[in-house]
Amino acid sequence: MKTLFVDLGQRSYKIRIGSGLIHKVGGYISELGFTSPPIVITNSTVLRLHGRNLLQSLIGKTEGPRVIQIGDGERFKNRETLWQIYSGLFKARADRRSWIIAFGGGIVGDIAGFAAATFMRGIPYINVPTTLLAQVDSAVGGKVGINVPQGKNLIGAFHQPSAIFLDPGTLRTLPSRELAAGLYEVIKCGAISSENLIRYVERNLERILKCDPAALQHIASECCCIKADVIVRDERENDLRMILNYGHTIGHALEAATSYRRFKHGEAVGWGMLAALGYGRELGFLGPEAIHRLWALIHRVETLPPLRGIPVEKVWSALVRDKKVRSGKISMVLLKDLGDGIICQDVDGAHLKKYLKQFLAAGGDPGTH
Amino acid sequence: MKTLFVDLGQRSYKIRIGSGLIHKVGGYISELGFTSPPIVITNSTVLRLHGRNLLQSLIGKTEGPRVIQIGDGERFKNRETLWQIYSGLFKARADRRSWIIAFGGGIVGDIAGFAAATFMRGIPYINVPTTLLAQVDSAVGGKVGINVPQGKNLIGAFHQPSAIFLDPGTLRTLPSRELAAGLYEVIKCGAISSENLIRYVERNLERILKCDPAALQHIASECCCIKADVIVRDERENDLRMILNYGHTIGHALEAATSYRRFKHGEAVGWGMLAALGYGRELGFLGPEAIHRLWALIHRVETLPPLRGIPVEKVWSALVRDKKVRSGKISMVLLKDLGDGIICQDVDGAHLKKYLKQFLAAGGDPGTH
Repeated sequence: MKTLFVDLGQRSYKIRIGSGLIHKVGGYISELGFTSPPIVITNSTVLRLHGRNLLQSLIGKTEGPRVIQIGDGERFKNRETLWQIYSGLFKARADRRSWIIAFGGGIVGDIAGFAAATFMRGIPYINVPTTLLAQVDSAVGGKVGINVPQGKNLIGAFHQPSAIFLDPGTLRTLPSRELAAGLYEVIKCGAISSENLIRYVERNLERILKCDPAALQHIASECCCIKADVIVRDERENDLRMILNYGHTIGHALEAATSYRRFKHGEAVGWGMLAALGYGRELGFLGPEAIHRLWALIHRVETLPPLRGIPVEKVWSALVRDKKVRSGKISMVLLKDLGDGIICQDVDGAHLKKYLKQFLAAGGDPGTH
Repeated sequence: MKTLFVDLGQRSYKIRIGSGLIHKVGGYISELGFTSPPIVITNSTVLRLHGRNLLQSLIGKTEGPRVIQIGDGERFKNRETLWQIYSGLFKARADRRSWIIAFGGGIVGDIAGFAAATFMRGIPYINVPTTLLAQVDSAVGGKVGINVPQGKNLIGAFHQPSAIFLDPGTLRTLPSRELAAGLYEVIKCGAISSENLIRYVERNLERILKCDPAALQHIASECCCIKADVIVRDERENDLRMILNYGHTIGHALEAATSYRRFKHGEAVGWGMLAALGYGRELGFLGPEAIHRLWALIHRVETLPPLRGIPVEKVWSALVRDKKVRSGKISMVLLKDLGDGIICQDVDGAHLKKYLKQFLAAGGDPGTH
């Protein structure tokens, strides 16, 4: 097992990573000093697959946990589900000493974390992520929130968990498309700050896709390290933290332009990285060998859902509406080298839009290989 | 004019206090470094009485402000109004660089501050309070939130303002009952930490009730000092900050037991202080002279709405449900002396309930005079 320490002063916490860890969560709870029974927020799928393991680990370690079940899927990350969680908390007689276990993928983590951030002005929560995307990305960093008709995550907060327990063993039950989608966030982490991680994924892709525990533990711990390192220096995304958005400026816009139906978030990030690669090449950012390596790796993971029929205008209006656009200026992360991302604050909108039009017309082939 | 500095590290801010300050708010905005137009959240009453003064002060100092109007009254401090504010923010094309001016009493400050805390994971806000209660209490401290059917302020956050502009001149338009209600929070501040402030109110009560600007500025600045001093040492109400809840344990319960209809919040705090005075006497806490002084002062402010017909069971169940009850233990602030409050963490529930029954039966006469 591996333990990482995220040093955020009073909000510091540990990330524990290990195969089979879900059976031991209860044993680590006592060090957190909670005095009330936990309230587990999860969905029916996770509860069926892994609920018994988590709940059994809590026996004798905490008072009897309560469970609040929410709907499974991005469309449930909304205000109705948030109020369903609040109601569940009141029904469970939760008070300011209560605490939450967010148990599931990124959707559960985001909405349960936001409920924790706002219930009685904030109660603690721990995160037990059960998808690759959540384990390598969304569980770490304290970004919590819900979607609204105007866009994703537009209502939310920064609320750091009190601990994260990350068991790669839970990924064995994950649909292969979900696993692949999560892997794009792993590649993103490597792309912006670790050529070693890119090389590891290149050499171990088959092991990872077969859920080899050692390989999954390695990539999860590398990604958490990279992300924690950024967050410690810029917790509330004033500037540096934006580096984690590589592939996301265009990725988010692709998701929005297709009403969040065609792509998994990770897949949209996959396309977003390909687009950013090509755009970086136009600006003369990255050598052809590095471009080819990243391009090839992204395509080896799986066949991405096609870009066919997505109008550039829809992508563009989503992109400029995105909250990462600050006072009208477009920010975008580009790579100087594999493992070396930089934030460009003043991307020329007209130029980027023209490039995006070509990229979509060519079905997402940046012509870089 | 007076300026107080609230030292909260990265979240530090200034409180400016002065009669006529509302005409000058715009002039101080530039030092805050905002780059987007402000979004003013207010209600129709405040807008009619003071809107022009504030908006004119902004001309030429910021881009054109947008105004979001919400309903006037505690019953509008709910989830529907919160979503109305979010919609208004989206319509105004607010982004992460946007900022809010909360302009009104405590209700406006609480809900506008909570919208600011959660819109795009948190945008800045400044507070321009226009009631005595907001000026001496709710505007300072960063507690923001909304009411739910289960109770007041149960969904919320801690979100410090970027500045507070406090103009006692705006109180001239305040109904006299509102002014009196706010004064109980002033008396509370004195009771827990400044016998000087109690003496000032005793000697200047008529001037205060006639809205004498110098007197109002004095009490506002004393209260803000006292509150800021506590908050700097305990921003998130872990322990020390609870001292500010003198009169609130029973006060909140009285409000809830009468469905928030009979008492203004300050009036309930007035009754709560009287009850706490009598209970403290039972425990042998305070000398008869001090009890008599505080009792007399509270009654001099105005005639409090009667306690008639409030069943003790309703008050009691509201009290134990209150979020200040931690894991079933009742916390209550009592006075060791005038100007010297202490937090009692382990109040004997049965004993307190018995006392409360007598207090209600006697129509709120603690028999202390």
